[in-house]
Amino acid sequence: MQAVHNIAEICARHGITDVVLSPGSRCAPLTIAFARHPEIKVRTVPDERAAAFIGLGLAQAQKRAVALVCTSGTAGLNYAPAVAEAYFQQIPLVVFTADRPPEWIDQLDGQTIRQADLYGAHAKGSFQFPADTSHPDALWHSARLVSEAIGLAEQFPAGPVQVNVPLREPFYPKPGEELQFTAVKVAREVPGRPQLPEPVLRELQDALRSTTRVLVVAGQHPADTDLLLALRRFAAVWQVPVVGDVIANLHLPAAPDYDQRLRPLGRHDVFLAVPEPGLKEALKPELLITFGQSLISKALKLYLRNAKPAQHWHIQPSGAVADTFQSLTKVLRVEPVDFFTAMMAEEPAPTAPTAGVPGMLVAPPDATRVAPAPHPVGPARLTWPAPGGQLTEAEAQTKAAYLKPWLAAENWASRFLPDFLAQPNPPFNEFLAIYQALQGLPDGTALHLANSMAVRYANILGLPAGRTVEVFANRGTSGIDGCTSTAVGAALAQPHRPVVLLTGDVAFFYDRNAFWHNYPVPNLRVILLNNHAGGIFRLIDGPRQQPELEEFFETRQPLTAANTARDFNLRYLTADTFTKLESVLPVFFAPEHGATLLEITTDSKTNAEFFEQYRAAVRTSFS
Amino acid sequence: MQAVHNIAEICARHGITDVVLSPGSRCAPLTIAFARHPEIKVRTVPDERAAAFIGLGLAQAQKRAVALVCTSGTAGLNYAPAVAEAYFQQIPLVVFTADRPPEWIDQLDGQTIRQADLYGAHAKGSFQFPADTSHPDALWHSARLVSEAIGLAEQFPAGPVQVNVPLREPFYPKPGEELQFTAVKVAREVPGRPQLPEPVLRELQDALRSTTRVLVVAGQHPADTDLLLALRRFAAVWQVPVVGDVIANLHLPAAPDYDQRLRPLGRHDVFLAVPEPGLKEALKPELLITFGQSLISKALKLYLRNAKPAQHWHIQPSGAVADTFQSLTKVLRVEPVDFFTAMMAEEPAPTAPTAGVPGMLVAPPDATRVAPAPHPVGPARLTWPAPGGQLTEAEAQTKAAYLKPWLAAENWASRFLPDFLAQPNPPFNEFLAIYQALQGLPDGTALHLANSMAVRYANILGLPAGRTVEVFANRGTSGIDGCTSTAVGAALAQPHRPVVLLTGDVAFFYDRNAFWHNYPVPNLRVILLNNHAGGIFRLIDGPRQQPELEEFFETRQPLTAANTARDFNLRYLTADTFTKLESVLPVFFAPEHGATLLEITTDSKTNAEFFEQYRAAVRTSFS
Repeated sequence: MQAVHNIAEICARHGITDVVLSPGSRCAPLTIAFARHPEIKVRTVPDERAAAFIGLGLAQAQKRAVALVCTSGTAGLNYAPAVAEAYFQQIPLVVFTADRPPEWIDQLDGQTIRQADLYGAHAKGSFQFPADTSHPDALWHSARLVSEAIGLAEQFPAGPVQVNVPLREPFYPKPGEELQFTAVKVAREVPGRPQLPEPVLRELQDALRSTTRVLVVAGQHPADTDLLLALRRFAAVWQVPVVGDVIANLHLPAAPDYDQRLRPLGRHDVFLAVPEPGLKEALKPELLITFGQSLISKALKLYLRNAKPAQHWHIQPSGAVADTFQSLTKVLRVEPVDFFTAMMAEEPAPTAPTAGVPGMLVAPPDATRVAPAPHPVGPARLTWPAPGGQLTEAEAQTKAAYLKPWLAAENWASRFLPDFLAQPNPPFNEFLAIYQALQGLPDGTALHLANSMAVRYANILGLPAGRTVEVFANRGTSGIDGCTSTAVGAALAQPHRPVVLLTGDVAFFYDRNAFWHNYPVPNLRVILLNNHAGGIFRLIDGPRQQPELEEFFETRQPLTAANTARDFNLRYLTADTFTKLESVLPVFFAPEHGATLLEITTDSKTNAEFFEQYRAAVRTSFS
Repeated sequence: MQAVHNIAEICARHGITDVVLSPGSRCAPLTIAFARHPEIKVRTVPDERAAAFIGLGLAQAQKRAVALVCTSGTAGLNYAPAVAEAYFQQIPLVVFTADRPPEWIDQLDGQTIRQADLYGAHAKGSFQFPADTSHPDALWHSARLVSEAIGLAEQFPAGPVQVNVPLREPFYPKPGEELQFTAVKVAREVPGRPQLPEPVLRELQDALRSTTRVLVVAGQHPADTDLLLALRRFAAVWQVPVVGDVIANLHLPAAPDYDQRLRPLGRHDVFLAVPEPGLKEALKPELLITFGQSLISKALKLYLRNAKPAQHWHIQPSGAVADTFQSLTKVLRVEPVDFFTAMMAEEPAPTAPTAGVPGMLVAPPDATRVAPAPHPVGPARLTWPAPGGQLTEAEAQTKAAYLKPWLAAENWASRFLPDFLAQPNPPFNEFLAIYQALQGLPDGTALHLANSMAVRYANILGLPAGRTVEVFANRGTSGIDGCTSTAVGAALAQPHRPVVLLTGDVAFFYDRNAFWHNYPVPNLRVILLNNHAGGIFRLIDGPRQQPELEEFFETRQPLTAANTARDFNLRYLTADTFTKLESVLPVFFAPEHGATLLEITTDSKTNAEFFEQYRAAVRTSFS
């Protein structure tokens, strides 16, 4: 078993500090090796579906790979939803699936399925650990492939890999036997940082100069101060509107906050719903520049698909690129921060940061255990001298003429929304309740937004200004299946940071096993919007007109979270009026109370009516 | 959308009556088509993992294919554990996964993964429905592949298939619009029944005659009276021991009960644990004949692997065959019932049954909706005249000499077990509690045994004699992930039959979402053995000697089912003493009380000590 015990050592040498395992017999040698490794923290979670999403939440928060360990059979299949989410959200997971040795596959033994390449197109790679490592070459191979697997998981774009580990009995060391974590050779990846050649940069800058209507749109992106700063400078220099959903984390305060007037825009879900052809025309870009992952805003996505910019540059150092708006013309293979820095005409290139994990907004609570980031995200020093000079007055004016309607629309939406929501005596409804709840978010919160309505509502409502709230959401696959577990993983990773999950009842009850383990999460706060149904279906036009609405789309469900809270020792608060909500929020967010669940009960029909009112008001209020 | 609506009609024409769907937007056209089809019963279950196992339970109970419908994204991945179980347990499932159209895959749209061939090696086939059916050939293709998929799912060995259905908006019919279920052509499978040529049958019979030590071992098999009768006649004619685990359903009363002395043996888990080399030697077969799927009994499996019979014939009409005992020499491509019937020397060939679903022990409660069985399981009339004549007296005596130690061992175990369990003042423990609970099973029960300890205990303890209790267990993959949902599916399929689930706490809490839907199961009874841990790990030698036992193997968990019972309106009974257990059992099994959960709370260490006592007694008591 030495080769198997070496797996723990190799993981530790690659900087993996956290393992989530699920109990089983076949995986015992892996369990024991990880549990006894002095540098590795192991947690055990019985439901593999939840375990994998908890691992994903840990990896997302810690910005490094997490290992998962499960036994043979369908255990590994229960990882599949989280593996797919990790694949599309680009989060490194190293999945060790224990297996029978090859000769016993398909021989009707228990817990035996076909585990080779278990995750198909949703893993970056699948590695088969040798069943027999008695030959020295096989031993070398066994260590090499684990290194390769971890390296592949961490390479940009990061993602999940599978290492299938066939194991023959006996699985267990003798009582009292000590495991040896012997010196193993590991091969570590040292990522390079792509640079565009100077002539290309000049061409791009020329294009920027000669194009009047330039728009930057950010997809989902982790918080990154260096990028944020570069982006704001870029926006100021080029007078370009920058738009991002709440999951793009552009709302975070950049230090120094370069130009408040040019902070990124985030109210597009409101103002793009305005049926004003003049406005739509005024906002049309000629050149669209994007970076990051997916958009939440269907309004923005449809608008840009319809607007069809002549040029669309997407900035991504490597990997496949989506043609999200059917307009893609260039894929720029650099880091976004490098691109925006290089494009700046009048600013000096910033120097490389001197300490800390690049891009972290909040100091990791547990800084001693931080491994080197798997790929560099801070700005490299630019060897290319900033060319081009300032915009001429005429150029600046033409650019500003395009920026102006974007700023006007954003400003209108920023006034409209609180005005609309301040209406007297509104019926209790989830849209307004979320707005109220979000105002209470503590500074430094990691906010997890569940699919499907929570993340959409939050994108419309925005976050309270001036607060450092980093936003996460499983938008790789947009599933409801692991939103709670992901937040639990985040809470475990950052015990001194408030982690708030905003979720709906279907997502919440789906993933209750997120709490079924022995690891407390005193820093977790769950805001549960319970409308006893998949409320989204009453908000969209198609299903709400069908006779099948209640039974087959909404799927009415009667649960409250009271019993779940009892089962898992969550402090349980409720609100069904705005007054009640106001009074419980300070209790809810108070750090001393431990894991707390706030169940906000609303009526699906009232929610739909109020939201319809909101939509009607948007359509008629724009000025 | 007519091509999509046709899917419901094609399913109905193939005899599919039940659909389990999970709510979603992308799947709306499928949802609406199935919900409005007059011959199809649709149920909606939000957690796709539970939904798929409920579908599996329905299909297993009804002996016909069930369709699953889910939306795009990770929804379909949550089906994967049940799909793998269906694959290895040979249960027909037709999985419709709604998808984005191909051009939108990998374009960062929500709920979009790579759904083609989503189940890899665990589906019999994966079909891609055309995204555009406006060309008449594409329309023909769309209908043809649905027929082909259902046919493939039902062909022996049955199993799951995927039909991936890309859908473009708009998804919804206009308000008030009526769906048309137009005449579609379907191509149905009419399965043939393989026959062995007469000379081969003579050879096999000659081998049977000339071999002294012939043993029949049955793997997991649904209840089948015709097979049971043929098997008993075969055993009587050839004086051959027939051994089967509780999941082989050989314990069921055959009518007429041909020869009580030659009823199949089922106490092998007890007597093969006896460390008596003489006994082991006496039981060794020269020719092993097997049929059916997997064995639970590790004792039997290891014994036969060690005994290495010179000949092992496995009887299976088609499909891959496992070499479970490393001794396989012949695969006989016929139905087991035909083989045993053909081998009988002195009995006339039975005639085909005149009515009912072949092989059903209990009349289906819902007989009007029974579609033709997907493949014939009743005996065909044998055209081959029974050759060979009776055994000579000498032959009969030699054969009986081998049968004798098997019968003696079975009889010993049948006396030993109740004697051992009747010890005065035993501590409360799950082994004995299960024995007591099983005595109360109502006649006609469908007994679902969960993995991992419930099914093992039941195999040791056996079932009360003379009662018609049909046994089910997810032994295709032996996972704990869907045992409750499968039982819920069975209860939904057979509302007038008692369905009893025997389960442990880890399997039970893992799959609580089995109850999270709006379909009552008043005929379901759940016996939950709660030892607050994965108790199996304290019963096996390796882990119980490791310091990681409690945290990483047993995984202590504090839940009781009280809150789950509250959430899902299950009548909740508890027992923590034998007296209490005795008093609640009649209440528990009473049909009038509706869905009921009996939580039997035991201590994991006491369980392990008592079970160790049992094992010690087996080792020393054999005479």
